[in-house]
Amino acid sequence: MTDDIRLCRTFQTAPAAVPKDDSAKYLVSGLEAEGFQAPDWLVPDLEDGTAPDMKAEGLENTIEKVPEYEFPGEIWPRVEWSYEDESFREKGREQIDRLVAELGDDIEGVVVPKVGRLGDVERAAEAVAEAEREHGYADGSIGLSIIVETGRARSDLREIAMFGADSRLTALVFGPVDYAAELGGRDLGDGMPRWDGLLEALSNEASAAGLLAIGGPFDDLFTERAGLTYYNAEEYADQIEYEARIGLDGSWSLYPKQTIQANTVHMPTPEELERDVSKIERFNAAKREGTGAVTLDGQMVDEATFKNFKNTVEQVRAIDATRPEQTADYYDEDLLERALELELSYR
Amino acid sequence: MTDDIRLCRTFQTAPAAVPKDDSAKYLVSGLEAEGFQAPDWLVPDLEDGTAPDMKAEGLENTIEKVPEYEFPGEIWPRVEWSYEDESFREKGREQIDRLVAELGDDIEGVVVPKVGRLGDVERAAEAVAEAEREHGYADGSIGLSIIVETGRARSDLREIAMFGADSRLTALVFGPVDYAAELGGRDLGDGMPRWDGLLEALSNEASAAGLLAIGGPFDDLFTERAGLTYYNAEEYADQIEYEARIGLDGSWSLYPKQTIQANTVHMPTPEELERDVSKIERFNAAKREGTGAVTLDGQMVDEATFKNFKNTVEQVRAIDATRPEQTADYYDEDLLERALELELSYR
Amino acid sequence: MTDDIRLCRTFQTAPAAVPKDDSAKYLVSGLEAEGFQAPDWLVPDLEDGTAPDMKAEGLENTIEKVPEYEFPGEIWPRVEWSYEDESFREKGREQIDRLVAELGDDIEGVVVPKVGRLGDVERAAEAVAEAEREHGYADGSIGLSIIVETGRARSDLREIAMFGADSRLTALVFGPVDYAAELGGRDLGDGMPRWDGLLEALSNEASAAGLLAIGGPFDDLFTERAGLTYYNAEEYADQIEYEARIGLDGSWSLYPKQTIQANTVHMPTPEELERDVSKIERFNAAKREGTGAVTLDGQMVDEATFKNFKNTVEQVRAIDATRPEQTADYYDEDLLERALELELSYR
Repeated sequence: MTDDIRLCRTFQTAPAAVPKDDSAKYLVSGLEAEGFQAPDWLVPDLEDGTAPDMKAEGLENTIEKVPEYEFPGEIWPRVEWSYEDESFREKGREQIDRLVAELGDDIEGVVVPKVGRLGDVERAAEAVAEAEREHGYADGSIGLSIIVETGRARSDLREIAMFGADSRLTALVFGPVDYAAELGGRDLGDGMPRWDGLLEALSNEASAAGLLAIGGPFDDLFTERAGLTYYNAEEYADQIEYEARIGLDGSWSLYPKQTIQANTVHMPTPEELERDVSKIERFNAAKREGTGAVTLDGQMVDEATFKNFKNTVEQVRAIDATRPEQTADYYDEDLLERALELELSYR
Repeated sequence: MTDDIRLCRTFQTAPAAVPKDDSAKYLVSGLEAEGFQAPDWLVPDLEDGTAPDMKAEGLENTIEKVPEYEFPGEIWPRVEWSYEDESFREKGREQIDRLVAELGDDIEGVVVPKVGRLGDVERAAEAVAEAEREHGYADGSIGLSIIVETGRARSDLREIAMFGADSRLTALVFGPVDYAAELGGRDLGDGMPRWDGLLEALSNEASAAGLLAIGGPFDDLFTERAGLTYYNAEEYADQIEYEARIGLDGSWSLYPKQTIQANTVHMPTPEELERDVSKIERFNAAKREGTGAVTLDGQMVDEATFKNFKNTVEQVRAIDATRPEQTADYYDEDLLERALELELSYR
Repeated sequence: MTDDIRLCRTFQTAPAAVPKDDSAKYLVSGLEAEGFQAPDWLVPDLEDGTAPDMKAEGLENTIEKVPEYEFPGEIWPRVEWSYEDESFREKGREQIDRLVAELGDDIEGVVVPKVGRLGDVERAAEAVAEAEREHGYADGSIGLSIIVETGRARSDLREIAMFGADSRLTALVFGPVDYAAELGGRDLGDGMPRWDGLLEALSNEASAAGLLAIGGPFDDLFTERAGLTYYNAEEYADQIEYEARIGLDGSWSLYPKQTIQANTVHMPTPEELERDVSKIERFNAAKREGTGAVTLDGQMVDEATFKNFKNTVEQVRAIDATRPEQTADYYDEDLLERALELELSYR
């Protein structure tokens, strides 16, 4: 984790164009979402989520709709790319160029899928840098996030993350469907593996390099039992709680109800917030009284420990700044106020 | 995966000599196997499968028997080797030299066990290159596969696979028994671990480098229940289905019934074949009609997607070319004919 | 594994000072432990186990108490350190300097926590080297073990272990609590993950580099059922048996009863000892009779195989040398005598 809090509890993709009367329907619905249905990151999808013959319209939808809304979260369009096909990279470069030209002030960065080894990630970073230069944006002002979904990207994950520590690279996002296809994994009736080794590495390398780590999509949106078809809340919760346990920062959402769940699982619980607010309050009180090291519950509060408490509070403040209806709904009024007013300096 | 289909659904080892009247009994039985009992790779075993005092006889059996049969699969003798013992490497070099001299046209390559770090794999590759030169074979005509069964080989797996991408290296095969012994793993009554992390890495690195990945042997051939001892079909199926799910290309077989199972699990199911044949048929029809991009079931068929469909068909064709009795037995006649006659070009 | 047997079935930490009348109570209790309660490694803990305001006293306790006892195992004090905070490294350097100055003949090495990437481990090794030089100890006479508990150390584990193969580095010890905190892993009610991928890598890299691999602490010391609170023998046994299965050399103990269990799980069982003693006895007999290769149970006994048998016997001898009451208690008198008297030379 970096010092400046970067929220991505939810990485919600929305097709940039769909074959409906209003082809921007899902994109607009993401931009307008309220309460816990509003994602931290909205990802207008120009890649697999949008049909081939609608990609041009998807790009126009994105350019037209995004500036119409004051979306409080971050906008990260997903463009086309492929480590093994120059024609896809050429399309990706054109999409990046157009997005930066028209939306450079509205987007935080772009999401690039199907990257290969480190050299291909560097190539994607260079495409973003070129668009920045071309359209007069400062170096590093447009971010880059990647989908980890090829054997090559997994093989180079450590090197890619180390490169990312000093670059515009922001998030490592897992893409299980293409990954399984690349490895030749086969569903013989019991579903696909969870790829535990990859997920553990994703969490570790992102953490070691100060990047965000985000889980992959879950597309069994609905389930059926005793004749009733209903939203599959339980299996998605299982997946994203597992992701939270191993230290991923956020989860992929394909659907407003998934966004509610991912936003909730990846924000500090009221108990976590109460615990850390109270620790900082007691730390501040002890600091006012004395000069030496401060000890809480038998543990000296060093700068690293303090950073953990502070991190919880800063996450809640960041959520409150963008989505005040979520914090108001989730935390006791009193606790939230204490969290917002706390002095957060270690020295 | 490389473009030219390389089949190794079954990596069947057979002791090259056993203490029986006919010491080549198991080797010959592998060479003569028919139907689903016939493996893709037959591995005359000069290493752990053959007793120390019979190794010389095993080498002679291999040299004598292999040319007598028109084995339709590939022959890959396993020689002796050890990253930590020069005397084993010396024996390995002599066996490789002799095999290339006498069987250079009959074998696809050699299998080298107990390799260590990358440098040791390069040393094994050089031993093969030397035998090639010595006996007038073109550079790269004799392949090399390795057993991954030491801490050092696992530690260098990424580097070994990357070296393999541009070399004679063909398959990475897991060797769990020696591996567990090297790490000091102990069976305290619940059996040994499955080494999930290693298997995931094996599948990934092989895929990223265009190599084959093969699972390890399962030697609880028989089980007993209610007084009856019978072939342990279920546990072996569990293992090899897991291997197929995570994208290994084939499984190790020690026994004709295991070969039946591994051949079956690692070939496209009739449903997979029907699905991909039909996609290519519709793709071809659309191509004939129009000029633009072809869309099937809402997805544009790009070259990468097309390669996946084509891969299924080419696998079936490769099986059909070597083992027509298996494809005839497994697929509907009509479907098989469509698969064999299909135009497979993307452009 | 290295050739000279290095025992660390138990890595028992003891706070170097606690707020009691006798602040050295737990340290002394570790030094005085007998029978199966006596650990192989006693780790006077100057880091997280000792409160901040008692660390100076803990250092004095260590310097005073350790020489008073003829502790038959190894003494490895844990000092303070942090890859991300120079002030902790400065404290660590002073503690290392003082420990080597006063206890250079009594300790086998120091344990350094919270190391980061390879460069930080090299920095810790240099701090030990400096203390050696300063106080006239031979280069390499004071060892270094590290706690693997940061994303950076996990990311560089292979490189750290490879550096360790030719250095004073002795053991890689897992630290799950800080590790989970670094990755942002959260306990949502089901406890924390086991980090299987990390543990598999720890066992592998340690094995490939000839280092010891030790599991992390388990602090749910007690459990409650039907109104009774009692020692949680079962869950700790589950953890350490898993560690033994995947090839870790020893386990972390926080408590005398844990030490009993870890000592027991990580020593050869009577069945393992009987098996390997008998193999060596038969090997020796065959060697006396003939000149050629020796075959036992159908397998040629090469030097690598022999080393496995020998390793079991040497472990038991090492335990017997330091803790004769444990071997006397655990093995049949006859078997133990055979193990102690056996000729162990391959040639």
